[in-house]
Amino acid sequence: MTAIADPPVPEAAPLPVPEPAPETKPRDILIICYSGELEKTWATMILATTAAAMGARVRVFLTFWGLQTFVKDDRRITGENAMQKMMSLMQRPGISHRKLSKMNFLGMGPWMMRKLAKQHNVASPKELLEIGQAMGVEFMPCQMTMDMFGLKRDDMIDGLGEPVGAATVISLLQEGDAPLFI
Amino acid sequence: MTAIADPPVPEAAPLPVPEPAPETKPRDILIICYSGELEKTWATMILATTAAAMGARVRVFLTFWGLQTFVKDDRRITGENAMQKMMSLMQRPGISHRKLSKMNFLGMGPWMMRKLAKQHNVASPKELLEIGQAMGVEFMPCQMTMDMFGLKRDDMIDGLGEPVGAATVISLLQEGDAPLFI
Amino acid sequence: MTAIADPPVPEAAPLPVPEPAPETKPRDILIICYSGELEKTWATMILATTAAAMGARVRVFLTFWGLQTFVKDDRRITGENAMQKMMSLMQRPGISHRKLSKMNFLGMGPWMMRKLAKQHNVASPKELLEIGQAMGVEFMPCQMTMDMFGLKRDDMIDGLGEPVGAATVISLLQEGDAPLFI
Repeated sequence: MTAIADPPVPEAAPLPVPEPAPETKPRDILIICYSGELEKTWATMILATTAAAMGARVRVFLTFWGLQTFVKDDRRITGENAMQKMMSLMQRPGISHRKLSKMNFLGMGPWMMRKLAKQHNVASPKELLEIGQAMGVEFMPCQMTMDMFGLKRDDMIDGLGEPVGAATVISLLQEGDAPLFI
Repeated sequence: MTAIADPPVPEAAPLPVPEPAPETKPRDILIICYSGELEKTWATMILATTAAAMGARVRVFLTFWGLQTFVKDDRRITGENAMQKMMSLMQRPGISHRKLSKMNFLGMGPWMMRKLAKQHNVASPKELLEIGQAMGVEFMPCQMTMDMFGLKRDDMIDGLGEPVGAATVISLLQEGDAPLFI
Repeated sequence: MTAIADPPVPEAAPLPVPEPAPETKPRDILIICYSGELEKTWATMILATTAAAMGARVRVFLTFWGLQTFVKDDRRITGENAMQKMMSLMQRPGISHRKLSKMNFLGMGPWMMRKLAKQHNVASPKELLEIGQAMGVEFMPCQMTMDMFGLKRDDMIDGLGEPVGAATVISLLQEGDAPLFI
């Protein structure tokens, strides 16, 4: 369109060296894993592993209920004081114990969902977690959530990064990461 | 780095033609429609139609409970096996049958919400869907969700795009789409 | 537009001053505060205040249940007609009356959560709101939600911006704000 109005190209014009346009640099992916529900854990893991498989740098910030998902599956009670222990009792932590956001019906909903996934060769959240870790997805626990729930490093699964705070999330957002709050 | 290899600046260098800064290109909008709740369906549709009206390219990825919203309203039972059928029974699909995330009270909450919307000239989700489709909003069903729930193309409303996977979502994120996980 | 005021191009064109690459400009943060739950209110406030403390421009769009959080704490019933009043009765508005998304147990869950936060020196949502307002976080009420729930400016806490619509959100997304739908 503007070509019509362009001035004639001067004879000795240097060939422009094409610089990579900033926009073409693929963005890193930042998932804020806030929810502890089975479906959202699934969504997080599918997006994270897909992105890692495509060569993207993927960071997952584990916060609030989302952090409970990354407690070791065999921990039944976590926390240092009575209140923290009671909260872990009311909501069993661990990736194999996630519940649906609805249709739980005494565990029937999650069981059906897991069964349907198996029938259609969709990996379980736990399998996807292992795949994600093997592919370099970086899991960053939220320090404040660890403190509030009385969770210690030893309560958490292996291979997580150092606990970080909200400032780390904001920095990544400011730098242009593509954010998903799940 | 490339500066080293740059040719010497010729004497009659043409005035640099300012290229539009990449940042000024308006971003496309990508909504990941994950939830099937009435309010979130509303939020999705209002944002999608507003963006389309403003000339933005809008894509809506339909996944998990969000896909159920785009099943034809008159389908009562969907799915191929018993478990899939039971799940559709427990959660009636279709955009006219969305429930609130709370305050359902045997349907009174959604009824009041729809009534209030009408009083204030807010279009229903179904009307907004039709407007969105007319304005070119692209609805992309999630292949994996279709498989897991046993949904067939014929179960879905007309005008949806081809089913795609998580890789499509990640590509768009990497290219700089503004993402909303709703 | 600016063409009218443009000075004639000087003969000895100055060397173009390299502008900072667009990508290096830190992005503004846009939080769509959709949910009225205690934990999500907390997440919103922690991210908003942290970002503001880091010098980011932060806007929070208050919509649907998220707007109820910004009604004055002492309002018990809001709305102009019977239906709106009933809805406010069913869900008490105000930032000090948020409930957890689960484990409410007649108020015990939120009470424990607030108590744990206090023990670990995490500010309450109400304190964070005051900090955020003092630091320049811009809270933008959704006009449509105000209309639907019959909320008037006088029902809302002081210091909110003018009510805006979805078009404002879309504009900010198109311009490159980092969006979080919470």
